[in-house]
Amino acid sequence: MKPRNQQYEVSKTLARVATGQAFAEVVVRGGKLVNVFSGEILDNIDVAIAAGRVAYVGNAERAIGPDTQVVDARGRYMAPGLLDGHMHVESTMLSVTEFARAALRTGTTGIFMDPHEIANVFGSEGVRLMHEEGQQLPLKVFTTFPSCVPATDDLEDAGARLEVEHISEGLQWDNVVGLGEVMNFPGVVFGDPKMLGEIEATMRSGGTVTGHFPSDDDPMLQAYIASGVTSDHETVTREQGLRKVRLGMHLMIREGSAWHDVKEVIKIVTEDKVNSDNISLVTDDVMPQTLVEKGHINHVVRRAIEEGVDPVTAIRMATINVARYYKLDQHLGGIAPGKCADMLLIDDLSDMTPSTVIVDGHVVYDNGDYVVELPKFVYPDHIRSSMNVKRSLTPDDFKLASRYDGRDRTTVNVVGAIENSARTEKRTATLRVENGVVQPDLEQDVVRLACIERHHGTGEISLAFAQGFQLKSGAVASTVAHDSHNLIVMGTNDEDMAFAANELVRIGGGMIVVEDGRVLAEVPMAIAGLMSEKSLAEVVGEVARMEEAWKQIGCPLNAPFMTFSLLALPVIPEIRITNRGLADVTQFKLINVEIAE
Amino acid sequence: MKPRNQQYEVSKTLARVATGQAFAEVVVRGGKLVNVFSGEILDNIDVAIAAGRVAYVGNAERAIGPDTQVVDARGRYMAPGLLDGHMHVESTMLSVTEFARAALRTGTTGIFMDPHEIANVFGSEGVRLMHEEGQQLPLKVFTTFPSCVPATDDLEDAGARLEVEHISEGLQWDNVVGLGEVMNFPGVVFGDPKMLGEIEATMRSGGTVTGHFPSDDDPMLQAYIASGVTSDHETVTREQGLRKVRLGMHLMIREGSAWHDVKEVIKIVTEDKVNSDNISLVTDDVMPQTLVEKGHINHVVRRAIEEGVDPVTAIRMATINVARYYKLDQHLGGIAPGKCADMLLIDDLSDMTPSTVIVDGHVVYDNGDYVVELPKFVYPDHIRSSMNVKRSLTPDDFKLASRYDGRDRTTVNVVGAIENSARTEKRTATLRVENGVVQPDLEQDVVRLACIERHHGTGEISLAFAQGFQLKSGAVASTVAHDSHNLIVMGTNDEDMAFAANELVRIGGGMIVVEDGRVLAEVPMAIAGLMSEKSLAEVVGEVARMEEAWKQIGCPLNAPFMTFSLLALPVIPEIRITNRGLADVTQFKLINVEIAE
Repeated sequence: MKPRNQQYEVSKTLARVATGQAFAEVVVRGGKLVNVFSGEILDNIDVAIAAGRVAYVGNAERAIGPDTQVVDARGRYMAPGLLDGHMHVESTMLSVTEFARAALRTGTTGIFMDPHEIANVFGSEGVRLMHEEGQQLPLKVFTTFPSCVPATDDLEDAGARLEVEHISEGLQWDNVVGLGEVMNFPGVVFGDPKMLGEIEATMRSGGTVTGHFPSDDDPMLQAYIASGVTSDHETVTREQGLRKVRLGMHLMIREGSAWHDVKEVIKIVTEDKVNSDNISLVTDDVMPQTLVEKGHINHVVRRAIEEGVDPVTAIRMATINVARYYKLDQHLGGIAPGKCADMLLIDDLSDMTPSTVIVDGHVVYDNGDYVVELPKFVYPDHIRSSMNVKRSLTPDDFKLASRYDGRDRTTVNVVGAIENSARTEKRTATLRVENGVVQPDLEQDVVRLACIERHHGTGEISLAFAQGFQLKSGAVASTVAHDSHNLIVMGTNDEDMAFAANELVRIGGGMIVVEDGRVLAEVPMAIAGLMSEKSLAEVVGEVARMEEAWKQIGCPLNAPFMTFSLLALPVIPEIRITNRGLADVTQFKLINVEIAE
Repeated sequence: MKPRNQQYEVSKTLARVATGQAFAEVVVRGGKLVNVFSGEILDNIDVAIAAGRVAYVGNAERAIGPDTQVVDARGRYMAPGLLDGHMHVESTMLSVTEFARAALRTGTTGIFMDPHEIANVFGSEGVRLMHEEGQQLPLKVFTTFPSCVPATDDLEDAGARLEVEHISEGLQWDNVVGLGEVMNFPGVVFGDPKMLGEIEATMRSGGTVTGHFPSDDDPMLQAYIASGVTSDHETVTREQGLRKVRLGMHLMIREGSAWHDVKEVIKIVTEDKVNSDNISLVTDDVMPQTLVEKGHINHVVRRAIEEGVDPVTAIRMATINVARYYKLDQHLGGIAPGKCADMLLIDDLSDMTPSTVIVDGHVVYDNGDYVVELPKFVYPDHIRSSMNVKRSLTPDDFKLASRYDGRDRTTVNVVGAIENSARTEKRTATLRVENGVVQPDLEQDVVRLACIERHHGTGEISLAFAQGFQLKSGAVASTVAHDSHNLIVMGTNDEDMAFAANELVRIGGGMIVVEDGRVLAEVPMAIAGLMSEKSLAEVVGEVARMEEAWKQIGCPLNAPFMTFSLLALPVIPEIRITNRGLADVTQFKLINVEIAE
């Protein structure tokens, strides 16, 4: 860890305060200490702080001098700053700075982010920029370097590729602590040289190899663990959780905006009573609304407590357990001498809403107000103009010509979307052909779907059909299109599709809903076409208006823009659209839209 | 960690075994798995092993091929190999190889040694040799680099000094995992540049700074922790233990030959119910007899169980907790895919005596017999002839001349030994002066004491008097003389003292008891004058004969040679003899033997 001040640079100061030779800068007085080491709550404890770190814990009256700031904690709990062991900042649609502003007030003082989305657009440079943005914030931003960019080699083109040498180099940056979730678990298990090379590079650097194992296949799981991957956050059942803990994995139990795994998986603690010291709580993906309505990692702690976990144990799962997993417990994860003075004052542990947040010994948030200014980080121009599309789109670009002369009806493969699911279904539909162009059919809920290469200006456009959104008019487009983040467009008519695409290119990316040549709503995301430059409140407002607009054009689904943004992800079954065409993910190959007979 | 085979070098093999594409080399079948991750015991579990590591845990029937060695574990417990998180091999009087032979059969598969004694004789070279000896053994030998050599700067001369640059260099060696117990805690707390420099070097290298804090001073303790020291093994009371755990220290509870701390300190687990995941069990110092009679770290686990700790929790304290503390849990501390296949088969957990020991997937010990040969390690000649004494000693060398002309009686400061204690008492006695020479007085139990510089051939001899051993005849000598390990001699008469010293020089160091010009017993320690080259059984026999010889010359104390070997240690109160003279440890200065008036 490369903190603001290295422990060995300030330890003399801390020792002087501890032994009464100097006054503290800050003393937090008389609180109920949530002691994550012993597992106790100890009342009437003072914490003396100097040079950003804890100098003394106990009765610190003698450390209070004329210039010491005293924070009254009587009646409140003092908990260590919360750590989110795995998340993607891009999912919040916010810059790292704006995310930090939203998260710090909820008690998050450190995150371990996997900037996988920006890596697919701008490669190492994107990772470095988000990481650098994080380094200047009060929020401690650690990075696990993205491991699977692009998600597949043969089905799509992302903006960048990350090779083993990029990962080796990134692992040298301060506060890059390991390898981001290794999603390509079959690659690991079956000896893909790139995946094994990345794991080896991470081990050699002393970093942590984080995992992603959504399967029930026990032999594959054990091979994956044996290869050096040490954690997982894709566990959705109690049995999976039990198995992973027993096999020595660090189990990250997830509660994000779309993922609600705590209820089921936490039973391994509350019912199976397994040792919880290698279990942590993470968010993975949170949407901006969730940050406003529920909070961040404090919400996951709250959920664990609601499910019956003792509050101290639940807090351990978002503090010391995370710090130990990343080998940072010398500095983070608890309130003790020498550690970074990151702590929360909380009135009610079951509520987990801090009234005061202290980072590096500075009060950053107090009773509803931020006390510090966050520095401004400006991304370079080319990151803020990431729409590299060859030319303006026209309605004709979206017309799928039939491959078969003389057909007036043709049967096509359709991407079937499922509400609240990342999966799609491979369906078929029979459509009319007019003047050689295959027509959508709103009666069958079949609309046009397109994916436009947007990173290299190749002009590549692939066309297909989607079902399940119940659009009645207009079109939608998004540059958030996992994982390659090309420009995807879906619509009931060609004109609106071209308009939506061109308009989204014009504003630099994001999400848009149009109808009859008019913009109904848009969420501009200037940073790589993935993140807004606006504040949480503004983005939440824009997203809410966008959800309204989706309804207005006919879609009744919950969070349809999320379902839509996953239509281009060729690593989850069954069928996807990429810039190269229609991908059958059950066979891992490109297929024709039209079926031969 | 630099194991025999790096995980990334063998992970393909492990994955093939896990997924059924290859057979295992060894399958341990049907045992009761002590799962230190979940905290459970799971019955009827197989462990499939390949390339020295675990490939699969569960039902491994399909991993058994025609060449697979099957170890039947039915009815037995399968526990991870035990780890001793802090010990000095020199205390066993054995070479690392002979210690390993003694320890492996008791279930110890890894140690974290602090070769502090040899460092005082041969500096970095001595550390390197013991460390290298360890690297070729089945026992996994990790080293914490000695931090306090010599123990004091101003009162004595050791064979070597270790500076910050030696420590920085040593930390680069494979399997040197941190800094050895930082005994000079006042130095740390009050900003001694050498101590802070060593801690900084260790932190920069990513190593672990292990501690030693025998005091009750809470502000000093917190300053010590704030400076970066993360563990302690000198805790003797429940209150001290509770305080250290609450302050985030890794608490090593010690049960050695002379230290019996488990009974009291383990109450923080059994009665205070603190979280035990940052607590481990260590031996610190064990004598050869203890290895034979009680075992090694398995005895400490047994003691914890006897005091009421649940067996799985007790085993965790000597496996996964230790591995996590040293950031080696990816490889050690539990039975899970990818980890080194180090495990024990045990019939009875409360007894903790393994019937089979497996290291790196090889059965090394089975039903009373070693199955492997240990390689022979020969120390260089100069290490095996470490007695650099200027010349033969004569009886006159031991005659203390009075500083005061004409006194026929004089009052002297006396080193008062206390049975079973490392402390001494500063006493006085009035002695006769004959021909200008101060005489011992057996009536008052006051005998001659001498310390002869033996590292640099300076010819320096210091003389004083000791009390408390009740010698009636003869003399004793030892080159085990903490921490500088000069040659100390004690006797009832000058002739026997000279004889004992010369004889011990002749045999290359060790311990000796003589009477009337005849050797009653000797324990030759050719390696640096600290360790024998013989087997455990031979050394135990020699030590037993030496204890008899001490009795024969009048000493009724328990293990008097240990008390004697501490008379030169000028960091523990109250009074000591060093090569420079008589040291008053309450004032940290040299004093005259005779009192002025």
